[in-house]
Amino acid sequence: MNDPKAFVPEMLKGLALANPDTIVYDPKYNLIVRADAPSDDRVSIVQGSGSGHEPAHVMVVGEGMLDAACPGDIFAAPPTDFVLAAARRVRSDKGVLLLVNNYTGDRMAFEMAEELAAAEGIKVRTLFIDDDVAVKDSTYTIGRRGVAGNFFVIKAVGAAAAAGKDLDEIVRIGEKVNSVTRTMGVALTACTPPAKSEPLFDLADDEIELGVGIHGEPGRARQKWVPADELVDLLLDPIVSDLPFSSGDDVAVMVNGLGGTPISELYLVYGIVHEKLTAQGITPARNYVGEYCTALDMAGASITLVQLDDEIRELLAAPAEIPIRTF
Amino acid sequence: MNDPKAFVPEMLKGLALANPDTIVYDPKYNLIVRADAPSDDRVSIVQGSGSGHEPAHVMVVGEGMLDAACPGDIFAAPPTDFVLAAARRVRSDKGVLLLVNNYTGDRMAFEMAEELAAAEGIKVRTLFIDDDVAVKDSTYTIGRRGVAGNFFVIKAVGAAAAAGKDLDEIVRIGEKVNSVTRTMGVALTACTPPAKSEPLFDLADDEIELGVGIHGEPGRARQKWVPADELVDLLLDPIVSDLPFSSGDDVAVMVNGLGGTPISELYLVYGIVHEKLTAQGITPARNYVGEYCTALDMAGASITLVQLDDEIRELLAAPAEIPIRTF
Repeated sequence: MNDPKAFVPEMLKGLALANPDTIVYDPKYNLIVRADAPSDDRVSIVQGSGSGHEPAHVMVVGEGMLDAACPGDIFAAPPTDFVLAAARRVRSDKGVLLLVNNYTGDRMAFEMAEELAAAEGIKVRTLFIDDDVAVKDSTYTIGRRGVAGNFFVIKAVGAAAAAGKDLDEIVRIGEKVNSVTRTMGVALTACTPPAKSEPLFDLADDEIELGVGIHGEPGRARQKWVPADELVDLLLDPIVSDLPFSSGDDVAVMVNGLGGTPISELYLVYGIVHEKLTAQGITPARNYVGEYCTALDMAGASITLVQLDDEIRELLAAPAEIPIRTF
Repeated sequence: MNDPKAFVPEMLKGLALANPDTIVYDPKYNLIVRADAPSDDRVSIVQGSGSGHEPAHVMVVGEGMLDAACPGDIFAAPPTDFVLAAARRVRSDKGVLLLVNNYTGDRMAFEMAEELAAAEGIKVRTLFIDDDVAVKDSTYTIGRRGVAGNFFVIKAVGAAAAAGKDLDEIVRIGEKVNSVTRTMGVALTACTPPAKSEPLFDLADDEIELGVGIHGEPGRARQKWVPADELVDLLLDPIVSDLPFSSGDDVAVMVNGLGGTPISELYLVYGIVHEKLTAQGITPARNYVGEYCTALDMAGASITLVQLDDEIRELLAAPAEIPIRTF
């Protein structure tokens, strides 16, 4: 980086320069907006949260996904007036849906912005995501945290919006997907925020933090390193037993890297997850392996399961575009 | 991981379980092969190299890309008989092209396999990639190293093969793309091979290795950390002056993460590269930001430029499929 204070704006500028035809960067409010948004033919979908979780959420602004992302600084909620600016920017006759991961700071900013936007006559709703099974409350959260499972809510409501569904119906879909999505993660190292220049917490070389949060919040337990087979059990069992997922279920499986873990390790983990689920009669019908919601440079991974029915399956399979070119 | 010796097979197994319809894993020879390969209607493209560079190359086996990947163990060339097995497996009347990054071990394995395959009547050619401008010779290399620019050779020859071109023509295209592709990288940390459990080389927290190789080979200089603007100059100037690229050129730009660097930092770097090129009259006409060729968990990045003409532009824009699902 150059200057910690410029980290987020410089990243957003780079993202916009890489995608001149599809997204627009508004430096005043730190917004990334679809170039063709808003449209009165569809509900506009907005996600906000702290930065440092890329590609979430600024890199999933595109057709069938988000209309706008409203990021805060690293691990910090966006200011209320930035959220309000986002709602104004993508105002649509069909309405605006604000997606928010369940953290106290984000809830406050978005609930206040929703109220202000509604007072201006903008048709707006807010939906909270809380897929992390690790802990009941956390450092920055009352209730469960929202983590990588957020991706599935975005994909589903984005597809529903692209199909022209109404706001109430899209809220129903988003709540439904959130209600059948469960995640748990593990850290092998801490992460280092640009402005801090040292790791956010201490973790010995041979230790792991089970159920870590995506801002380095404590999880369920800190313990010694275990082999991957055993580690997958420690993540998967709490997920499967929570919903619970059971024999006969079709699921979408995500193995998400937390920022500092090579994709080779993620596929190794996917193979183990796939076999353990299959052994329980649970079918991995769709899979997602890579980085979706990170914690800066943290080494580690999370596993997410989504219980599929025909409606969710169809929404997840719908076409979409994001501003990251793979090849 | 579970066992260092099982790292590569377990990763390949996970990759295959995640992509049951499109790729096949042959555990005997560690091959990843397109499910619909070979076809006598097209030249078969094979890439081999050590593992630890994922998604290169096992994760780019697919339509318009590779027909097969033949990985060795971590940072080790595949055995000659594995390469020969790959050539046999994708044998086609139109021929087989073996792509090899220029490292002594890989060259030996592939040249010997080419000879053995030819003796069996397989029509086969080999093409060496050497895009790294950092050093003339290196620890494992006589001549320049092949690094992330390899992606562009794969994409171009993969597209040409899909279009039904002949082997000679595809070799011409591959050599041409290699000849206009230049890369240089930097390490912010070393990497840790699974079997070693400690970093491959020592790099202080405030140091960087300029021109590092993707197996941790020394580069041009080790020096103190500098801000991103200055770091981009240190990478970009040797690239631009080497071909040289000059005002009026259209280029493809890749900012490649080395495995432990978050995508946020890669987009920040892309923004700087984009502006510095534009200021020199060089137009970034296509861009690729993310992980393409990594060095396990190394923090760092490389920049690649490809000089575009109409032919290369069209080949890079051709449709292709890889077994990594983004969403």
